[in-house]
Amino acid sequence: METHRLEAFSDGVLAVIITIMVLELKVPEGHTLHDAVATTGQSMLTYLLSFIFIGIYWNNHHHMFQLIRRVDGKTLWANLHLLFWLSLIPFTTAWMDESRFARTPVMTYGVNLLTAAVAYFVLQLSATAAEGPDSSLRRALGTDVKGKLSPVLYLVGIAAAAINVWVGISLFVVVAIIWLVPDKRMERFLAEHSINE
Amino acid sequence: METHRLEAFSDGVLAVIITIMVLELKVPEGHTLHDAVATTGQSMLTYLLSFIFIGIYWNNHHHMFQLIRRVDGKTLWANLHLLFWLSLIPFTTAWMDESRFARTPVMTYGVNLLTAAVAYFVLQLSATAAEGPDSSLRRALGTDVKGKLSPVLYLVGIAAAAINVWVGISLFVVVAIIWLVPDKRMERFLAEHSINE
Amino acid sequence: METHRLEAFSDGVLAVIITIMVLELKVPEGHTLHDAVATTGQSMLTYLLSFIFIGIYWNNHHHMFQLIRRVDGKTLWANLHLLFWLSLIPFTTAWMDESRFARTPVMTYGVNLLTAAVAYFVLQLSATAAEGPDSSLRRALGTDVKGKLSPVLYLVGIAAAAINVWVGISLFVVVAIIWLVPDKRMERFLAEHSINE
Amino acid sequence: METHRLEAFSDGVLAVIITIMVLELKVPEGHTLHDAVATTGQSMLTYLLSFIFIGIYWNNHHHMFQLIRRVDGKTLWANLHLLFWLSLIPFTTAWMDESRFARTPVMTYGVNLLTAAVAYFVLQLSATAAEGPDSSLRRALGTDVKGKLSPVLYLVGIAAAAINVWVGISLFVVVAIIWLVPDKRMERFLAEHSINE
Repeated sequence: METHRLEAFSDGVLAVIITIMVLELKVPEGHTLHDAVATTGQSMLTYLLSFIFIGIYWNNHHHMFQLIRRVDGKTLWANLHLLFWLSLIPFTTAWMDESRFARTPVMTYGVNLLTAAVAYFVLQLSATAAEGPDSSLRRALGTDVKGKLSPVLYLVGIAAAAINVWVGISLFVVVAIIWLVPDKRMERFLAEHSINE
Repeated sequence: METHRLEAFSDGVLAVIITIMVLELKVPEGHTLHDAVATTGQSMLTYLLSFIFIGIYWNNHHHMFQLIRRVDGKTLWANLHLLFWLSLIPFTTAWMDESRFARTPVMTYGVNLLTAAVAYFVLQLSATAAEGPDSSLRRALGTDVKGKLSPVLYLVGIAAAAINVWVGISLFVVVAIIWLVPDKRMERFLAEHSINE
Repeated sequence: METHRLEAFSDGVLAVIITIMVLELKVPEGHTLHDAVATTGQSMLTYLLSFIFIGIYWNNHHHMFQLIRRVDGKTLWANLHLLFWLSLIPFTTAWMDESRFARTPVMTYGVNLLTAAVAYFVLQLSATAAEGPDSSLRRALGTDVKGKLSPVLYLVGIAAAAINVWVGISLFVVVAIIWLVPDKRMERFLAEHSINE
Repeated sequence: METHRLEAFSDGVLAVIITIMVLELKVPEGHTLHDAVATTGQSMLTYLLSFIFIGIYWNNHHHMFQLIRRVDGKTLWANLHLLFWLSLIPFTTAWMDESRFARTPVMTYGVNLLTAAVAYFVLQLSATAAEGPDSSLRRALGTDVKGKLSPVLYLVGIAAAAINVWVGISLFVVVAIIWLVPDKRMERFLAEHSINE
């Protein structure tokens, strides 16, 4: 099967996820800047963090499917599996935010990031398998340092959050920063091989 | 008419349906894992179940429209009819969940699954009719055992739920598992006949 | 400009509109069928009615843009204008429903249907103007009896609702039924002229 | 990378943003026209204003990407950056509305419009850079008077709102009116050079 509809559906789900988080932002109580910062400043920062994470997934998903020509039923489900974990991000974000960064909610947020990362990895495996070992995707991925480093950092972050939530959150932010640098592998590969989609 | 827009609109509706169910997940009361499991554990499981059902419909819809080239006005409405029943899933899920699996809500959930299955069957009939008896779709569907078995299992499940809700729910889960195995018919057909979309 | 993105954006907006109305469906109070019918039966019917109206607009929009090749900036805004009125349907539906069909809310619902119909007509004019007098669209529309009859029926319905809401609502339902019969003009035209999109 | 998915994702996000604002419209208390105007008239006007602003961004985004052939990772993030600020519009609209146009919320709304305008400008720069100095986009933009005037008007509007909110809001409305006139540059350019997309 062609990838077009998988991409369109994923775009739709990610667009809804990224936007419904705004519904969690409660209107500030009071009408001064001080009120706004006091009552919604923190929610704004957690929204920003989760927005960036969903943005990263959309970005990487987009890059990955530039190099995939065909998908099978297994890849469709691997993709739905990823979307399931990402769809929980608004929920775990809201819990972390509402608890004002209590230990368990922060660790739960980290676990959500971890499961999404694992699901992404499984999707990559599934898509690579369907494309074959000599596929453009396989070669473009290379050693996939970032993809392998992220789950490790999440795990360390979750463990660290058990002791100090801010250390844990800092590690989650580090992963976000690592990925914010766009994945040049795909672009370089596309440029070098001048693949037309 | 071409199928492109029917697919895009369906993707949009299904993407919204699958994601707004997350809005039903209330933030756990309390900040411990125990609190989370006690207050939202059950909602999580019903969300997962409905996510899988919507995922199955998207998957089968995707497979079906791989083999459909043209649609007429009747098929557009058959598709909207399916989307109507699927759009009620978040509602019946919420009722079943909120009632903590009381008899009538569980049976209502089953009826919703049944109406969606019937609507899917009607859509298949309509699309097949438009494509003609010798169409790729008609031949790829074959005897359509799964499609015929599902409504029967739903009916049995609804009846069983009248006596014991857990037997009913188990039967709904069985249908989900049957369909989670991707519909190889379409893929096999596509592979054998190497149809390019 | 090509019509692709106008169609994709309209599909997205209509998909969200049609689905967020489900969020208005409150979970029934109580766990019996009687409770469900008593507390949400009426909301279900108004949801169904508005679902059908949005479905009709999607359907006609789909048919219309089959015959449109190019759009200009004016048509983009005529389309946004239509989407604006349609986006208010969930709001006017909720008011009509919540008031249990009080006179002003029912008339407001009718006015919303009327403004959407007028906006659709303006879009048609704008799109036809851009395509020219001899366009396929212009000829396929023919005398456009349904398009001209609908606003009249809405107006009569709004006036009738001032005296008896049920007469008004019946007239709105009549318009829905008229349009549920798919617009054969476009299909016939497409078939006769075998236009490939 | 091709622009198709960036456009589809942006369409999805903008479609959700433009529609979820309707969820903020509370059902009027009471069932008379007077009640409706008293309790939701103001919300309706702020909804209309923000609908137009999102519509303008969709419109300009659409026009811009008619002339862009390829995007790189930087442009993907510049686009997400724009979507982030636009996703806050429902939030700042709700605050401004709920405060009944208090000073700080109105200024915050203006700041949100300003950040979105700056983000759009950054996206334009990024897209132009990727296309090269002799690109169609670069030439079609010309001196870009409107793009440069808008942030200035927003800034003046924000400052004016500190003294009198209505002067500030009037200036925001002026920007909306300036942009409601469709951006003929792109269309003219497309017509003159008869570029087929």
